[in-house]
Amino acid sequence: MTTSAPAATGPHVLRQINVTAVLTALRQTSSATARVADLMTTTGLSRPAVTRALADLREADLVELIADDAARVGRPAQRARFRAELGHVAGVDVGPHKILIKIADLAGDILTTHRVTTPPNATGPDVFTLVSQALDQAVKAAGLTHADLWAVCVGTPGIVDREHGEVLLAPSIPGWAGLPVVPELRDRLHCPVLIDNDVNLAVLAERWQGTAIGVDSLVFVQWGERIGTGLIIDGAPYRGAHAAAGELGFLDLGLPPNDPTGRPAADEGTGPFERLVGAAAIHELAVAMTAGDRDRDLHAQLTRPGERDITPLFTAAAAGSPTAIAVIDRVAARFAQGLSALILLLDPEQVVIGGGLSRAGDTLLEPIRRQLRGRTLSATSLHASTLGDDAVALGAVRHALDATADRLAAS
Amino acid sequence: MTTSAPAATGPHVLRQINVTAVLTALRQTSSATARVADLMTTTGLSRPAVTRALADLREADLVELIADDAARVGRPAQRARFRAELGHVAGVDVGPHKILIKIADLAGDILTTHRVTTPPNATGPDVFTLVSQALDQAVKAAGLTHADLWAVCVGTPGIVDREHGEVLLAPSIPGWAGLPVVPELRDRLHCPVLIDNDVNLAVLAERWQGTAIGVDSLVFVQWGERIGTGLIIDGAPYRGAHAAAGELGFLDLGLPPNDPTGRPAADEGTGPFERLVGAAAIHELAVAMTAGDRDRDLHAQLTRPGERDITPLFTAAAAGSPTAIAVIDRVAARFAQGLSALILLLDPEQVVIGGGLSRAGDTLLEPIRRQLRGRTLSATSLHASTLGDDAVALGAVRHALDATADRLAAS
Repeated sequence: MTTSAPAATGPHVLRQINVTAVLTALRQTSSATARVADLMTTTGLSRPAVTRALADLREADLVELIADDAARVGRPAQRARFRAELGHVAGVDVGPHKILIKIADLAGDILTTHRVTTPPNATGPDVFTLVSQALDQAVKAAGLTHADLWAVCVGTPGIVDREHGEVLLAPSIPGWAGLPVVPELRDRLHCPVLIDNDVNLAVLAERWQGTAIGVDSLVFVQWGERIGTGLIIDGAPYRGAHAAAGELGFLDLGLPPNDPTGRPAADEGTGPFERLVGAAAIHELAVAMTAGDRDRDLHAQLTRPGERDITPLFTAAAAGSPTAIAVIDRVAARFAQGLSALILLLDPEQVVIGGGLSRAGDTLLEPIRRQLRGRTLSATSLHASTLGDDAVALGAVRHALDATADRLAAS
Repeated sequence: MTTSAPAATGPHVLRQINVTAVLTALRQTSSATARVADLMTTTGLSRPAVTRALADLREADLVELIADDAARVGRPAQRARFRAELGHVAGVDVGPHKILIKIADLAGDILTTHRVTTPPNATGPDVFTLVSQALDQAVKAAGLTHADLWAVCVGTPGIVDREHGEVLLAPSIPGWAGLPVVPELRDRLHCPVLIDNDVNLAVLAERWQGTAIGVDSLVFVQWGERIGTGLIIDGAPYRGAHAAAGELGFLDLGLPPNDPTGRPAADEGTGPFERLVGAAAIHELAVAMTAGDRDRDLHAQLTRPGERDITPLFTAAAAGSPTAIAVIDRVAARFAQGLSALILLLDPEQVVIGGGLSRAGDTLLEPIRRQLRGRTLSATSLHASTLGDDAVALGAVRHALDATADRLAAS
C-alpha cells in the first residue's frame, strides 16, 4: 500500500480538481490574468495539466487568451484571463442611517458604489423598499440588469439566522427584524441571496482588502454607539456555537476605581461594555471631565444643544489640550480592559478597530496600545480600519463572490 | 466541463483515499471492528470499493477478518478488525506534583496507567530522570519494549514551543523550562515525541472520552491554584496566533464592590484572575468570611497549621452551612464574571471545568450556572470534568494516536 502523487491525467474527478485549482489561482491574481508558468507555480501542477485545465476553461467560456505585453523572447506571448465580466455580485450594507450597495464583477472589481440615506423614523418595510430601489439603481448604474447578478449578500446589524435568511433581532432598525428580506429579494432577483451580521462581513473585508490582508487570526471591533466584533479564526469566519461569538459589548468589567461617571442605566439591548465605553458614554465622560474651568472651549463644543458629537474631543487632544488627553486616556484605559480580555482569550494576530471611533486614529489607538502592554501576554497588533464606511458592503461583496464558486464549477 | 462522482476504481490516489477512509472509519468504531455494510454506511463508499480497501489493508497487515458472532442468516459471517496491537503510544502528564503515564494500543485502549509522585523540591533534571524511568516502567508493565512505541506525547504546564519541542516557561516546575525533553526522549525511544501544554491536551481528552464527546466548540477550564484553558474551535484545537490563547487566568476584572478581601499582591507568573479566584484566594476568602462567630468549626478546619485545603468548605456547604454557602456564592460570582467574558467572546457549545475545584461538582457549578444566566447571551452548558486527574495523560494519548496516521498510511 503506497501513496502516489495525483496523476495529471486521469478520470473526471482529478481533471475537475485541476480545473478548479487553475481557476482559483487565476481569480486570485490581482489582474485575474496569468501565464501558464505562473499557474504552474501557484498550483504545483505540471505544464500539460495546466494547459489541459485552461483548454477546459476556454471551452466553458470562463477564460480567454490575451496577448502578453510583458512576454520575453522565446516565451509564449499569451496570458490566460479570467472572464470576470461573465457575472456580477452585489454587496448591500443595511445600517440604521444608510444603505450602501457595491456591484462587483467576478474578479471582485467594484463597478458601482451607490449610497442612500435612510430618512429618520423609517420603518422596517420602508427600509426594505429603499433596499430594493437602491439595488435597481445600482444595477442600472453599472450598466447591468438583474439577470447579470449571480449572488447578492446583505449585511445587517443584529442577530441573524443565516441558514433561514432571517434577521432575528435588530434593535437599531425598528421593524426590520422578522421581515422576509432574503426570500423577497430572491424572488425579485432570481439568484442566491445571503444575509449575515454586519461585523462578520466587515472582518472579511479587512482580510480581503483592508489592513489585515491574508491574516488568519483576526478580530474586527466595530466601535461606535454599539460595540460588536467579527472573528476570523484559523482563516475561517467564527460565529460561535449559537451564532453569538464576539459579544464584546456585553462584557461586564465593573467600573474602574475613582471613575467620575457612573455607568448609565441599563438599556434594553445594550451591554455593560457598550454603556461603559460606547460613543454616548465617552460623550458623557468628556462633558463631565471638561466642566468648570478645565476646558471651557471643549466643554462648550461638546454641549451644543441637540448635538452629541465627540469629534471635538479628538481635535482638542491632537492640538494638545491636557484635559482632552486626560479624557482619552481614561477612555483608552476602559477600552483596553475589555480588549485585553479578548486578546488574552483569543490571542489574534491582529485587531482592527472600525466604526466611528476608528476615525480618531492614533490619537485614540496609541493610548490603548500603551494600556494593552501591561494587560496582555502576546504581540497582537492594533490597527485602525482603512476601509471606513465601506467595510460591510465590501465584505458582503466578498461573501457573495465566494457563493459564486458553485455556479462557476457547474459552467 | 462537468463534475463527476469519484470513481471507486481508478488510479492510486483515489484507491489510497478509499483505504484511508475505511481505516479511519474502522479505527473510530468503539470495538475497532465492523462489517462491510457498516463501513459502507460510514464512508459512503460502494461495496466493491470497501472490499478492495479491506483487501489492501489485509495485505499491509493492518486488518484481519474475524468471525461475526452477531451475523444473521444470509449475511457474511465476518467482521473486519483493525489490528490495534500493531503499535502503541504513550501519553505523559508531567505536573508539579506527579508524573502520570498511560500506554495505549492504536485503537486507544489503555493497557497501563503508571503514576509517580514527584518529591518536593525536585529540580527540572530530577523530573526528566523520573519521566524517563517512569516511561521504562510503564512500557515494561504493559509487556512491551521501546520498539513498540509509535509515538509519545508529553503534556506540561507553562508555555510550549511545539514546533521546536521546547518548554519556554514553566514556573510551577523550577528548572524544567529549557531542558531538551523532546530531543532526549526521541533519542532514547526512536519514535516521534510531541509536547504540548497540559490544558491543550486535556480538552482533547474531554472531546474524546469525557463529557464533551464530539463537541466541536469546546472550552476546558483547569481550575486549581492556577487557571488555564484549552480551546477547541470548529473541531480543531485553537492555540492562538502566538500560542497564547485561553489565558483566562490573566483576565483583569477589578474587584467586585464590597468584597471583604483585597486581591493578593502581584506574584511573578500568576494573573489577576488567578489571584482573585484561584484555590489560594478561595482559601483566603473562606478564612475571612468564617472568622468570629460565623462558622467556628469550618474556620478551625480551614486554619489548621500547615494546611490550605479547601475541601471542608464544600463539605460544609453540601451539609447546609449558610456561611459556607455564602462563601461559595461569592466565589461563584467572581468566577462567573471571568467565565462570562469567555462565553460572550467565544460562544462555545460546552464549557468543562477540570482541576481540583471541579471535584466540588454541582455544589460549586450550580451557583456559577445561576450567575452566568444574567451575564451571557447564549446557551453554553457547563459541566464538571469526569476524567479528573487522567485528563492530561489521556489527551496526550489522543494526540500521540493522531501522530501515528502517517506511519499507518505508509504501511
